[in-house]
Amino acid sequence: MMAANGILPAINADRLMKDLRRLRQFGAQGNGVVRLALSPVDLEARHWLVERMAEAGLDAAIDGVGTVFGRSRKPGPALLIGSHSDTQPTGGWLDGAMGVIFGLEIARALSECAETSDLAVDVASWIDEEGTFAGYLGSRSFIGEPVEASIRAATSRSGERLEDVLQAAGLRNRPRAQVEPGRHVAYLEPHIEQGGRLEAAGKSIGVVTTIVGIREKRITFTGQRNHAGTTPMAIRRDAGAALIAFAHDLNQIFQRLADADTVWTVGRIELDPGSFSVVPGKAELLLQYRDAKADRLRAMDAALADLVRSVDSAGLIRVHLEDADPPCEPVDMTAALQEHIAVAAEAIKPGQWIRMPSGAGHDAQLIAEKLPSGMLFVPSIGGVSHDFTEDTAEEHIVLGCRIAAAAAVAILRDRQIAKSG
Amino acid sequence: MMAANGILPAINADRLMKDLRRLRQFGAQGNGVVRLALSPVDLEARHWLVERMAEAGLDAAIDGVGTVFGRSRKPGPALLIGSHSDTQPTGGWLDGAMGVIFGLEIARALSECAETSDLAVDVASWIDEEGTFAGYLGSRSFIGEPVEASIRAATSRSGERLEDVLQAAGLRNRPRAQVEPGRHVAYLEPHIEQGGRLEAAGKSIGVVTTIVGIREKRITFTGQRNHAGTTPMAIRRDAGAALIAFAHDLNQIFQRLADADTVWTVGRIELDPGSFSVVPGKAELLLQYRDAKADRLRAMDAALADLVRSVDSAGLIRVHLEDADPPCEPVDMTAALQEHIAVAAEAIKPGQWIRMPSGAGHDAQLIAEKLPSGMLFVPSIGGVSHDFTEDTAEEHIVLGCRIAAAAAVAILRDRQIAKSG
Repeated sequence: MMAANGILPAINADRLMKDLRRLRQFGAQGNGVVRLALSPVDLEARHWLVERMAEAGLDAAIDGVGTVFGRSRKPGPALLIGSHSDTQPTGGWLDGAMGVIFGLEIARALSECAETSDLAVDVASWIDEEGTFAGYLGSRSFIGEPVEASIRAATSRSGERLEDVLQAAGLRNRPRAQVEPGRHVAYLEPHIEQGGRLEAAGKSIGVVTTIVGIREKRITFTGQRNHAGTTPMAIRRDAGAALIAFAHDLNQIFQRLADADTVWTVGRIELDPGSFSVVPGKAELLLQYRDAKADRLRAMDAALADLVRSVDSAGLIRVHLEDADPPCEPVDMTAALQEHIAVAAEAIKPGQWIRMPSGAGHDAQLIAEKLPSGMLFVPSIGGVSHDFTEDTAEEHIVLGCRIAAAAAVAILRDRQIAKSG
Repeated sequence: MMAANGILPAINADRLMKDLRRLRQFGAQGNGVVRLALSPVDLEARHWLVERMAEAGLDAAIDGVGTVFGRSRKPGPALLIGSHSDTQPTGGWLDGAMGVIFGLEIARALSECAETSDLAVDVASWIDEEGTFAGYLGSRSFIGEPVEASIRAATSRSGERLEDVLQAAGLRNRPRAQVEPGRHVAYLEPHIEQGGRLEAAGKSIGVVTTIVGIREKRITFTGQRNHAGTTPMAIRRDAGAALIAFAHDLNQIFQRLADADTVWTVGRIELDPGSFSVVPGKAELLLQYRDAKADRLRAMDAALADLVRSVDSAGLIRVHLEDADPPCEPVDMTAALQEHIAVAAEAIKPGQWIRMPSGAGHDAQLIAEKLPSGMLFVPSIGGVSHDFTEDTAEEHIVLGCRIAAAAAVAILRDRQIAKSG
């Protein structure tokens, strides 16, 4: 069977689903999975992945930070496919895991097909995408970021030190997988959507255009704590009331700057001391906003800072703005890879795909610094993720893997891309 | 020395201040006091009060709920003067305590003066005005409310049962002080203002017109928890955003209904789950509002309920409104008592007093159900109360006691009031 621009390798759907379900058992809780990075059950799952990759003919090992890396024995150029098999504290079974098993299945399927058996596919399960110790540790290490300081400093919420955990797992002194500029030509990350856009549009595949940039801000308001019965409105310096007015005004301002893909969220509000009878003297809000366009994020930054200055300079309430996390800029997916995924999707499921940004962060945003990168999404039922109830229809899982496989072949046969490797 | 309408008894300022400072030592912490109702240190203070009242010639005892009641041995009619000597968890030294010691000093001063030695003054320190177990327990019991069920059910935040504490203190089976309709003609409660109005106006005495009514409401918003990166604004059901819009609109509506004395406070906001990356699925706010006019409170109730219905019926976010505490109606202070306090204030400190509502609750609001009741306020420095830094200038304390004493004489000499007893 041929896609518009190449070979359509025969994915083994039963084998794919069997491996996905086996991986789910590591840390299964009801329909969900608890498999925090480098936990005993995550390490078990990683050892299991090494065995599966070895069976698939890859040189596989867990590296010095915990990433499972399966390197093809074929001559390059090589396409790298992967995602992460660690989960959130209450994670879904497919988030991350699906992309890893897609990589494994595509490596196997291409080897089994005479017309594609020459094509090199490396497979990775990055460590700690979810940030149990240090978010994106595996992909950061892979692209050559200096992660040693992070390894020494990072601790989990439960107080475990990353360095101790790596030592105990026997990983601390192992070599770390590194991008091979002469050999790796591109990175492909299949993933669940984690939102409801595909479902709402009735589509089966998303071709990711951009991974959005993110801002995370902490805004604090300082007024004067007072008795809520005996302090007239006219002489109050109510930090909570100031926060409400601020959040309302900011919402109006962001609405004017936004397009349909811009999102912003007030995720937490704290009023101090937090009782019926006390005018809050302090208040804090956590604000996150995301957009695919760097220009728009900068305009939102400026508008937020203006509003903070305007309220603060009125003098009644002090307002302080700070980054809770460093700003993260949007990362475009490589146009040629988008095109290969789109062509494969159109060949296999005509009219059933759309281009869309990724509102969530992914290892691909790091790896895109060093390699042409692309992502494809399959629909999340009800748009749910980071939750035990996260799921995707089996039909969509298998379809996603077939399209990813077809795109992989097209990418590896693309002379322009191969030359860039 | 004569006030405009009667005798001005000679308050002993040194004795007054000495007793106030002695009472402060029970539970002193820095400048503040921790003397929770029926705690060991509160019981010590109550035994000390019984001794002081006995020395003043009163039949004094701690009653079956913990109230210290000192009954005059003189024939009636009797004026009851008092407040409460229990404190908030981080209380000020004068809140409540001052009114109790004023009562004691006035009873002594009237007995010592030939022209007033016939006048009967009873003195009370009510138990648990501050609600460690059951708010206003002493005054509720005094006016004949059935408090037995409260005594059996009430526990403190630290898990102590009121019944056990009364039993351990040897109070459980004692008689409870009761209002004596043929004998008690009025109740007078001197208190610190607990707000900054007198200070802002540069006045020394407040004649209380009304104790405001209070509403305490819990408003919950239920939407849909979602990923804050992958869920477009257009399909969100963000409970937190709904709460902010609601609080903003309610503020506008209440501003239109309010007069200068109306107050409203959003004291707490909780967004669930409360993180940067999750669109809140649930949100809750605690709202309190107070006013001296029952009509205005009802208009605010109706406007709040209308707004809840309007947002809820839009269908995107469910909004639920409930009373966190039963509504509490405003209580007017008796006009004749206001007049006696005002006349005494004008005689002693001309032009240095104002009429004002009490924004805080007091035992007087309960006792007013059974007896003509009046309150006078002295200024709180910086408007601060329920805090270790609460204080009042000594000059204002002594002035307040002199005016209360003059008013007490005038009240007991008022034939209209005496007849009502």
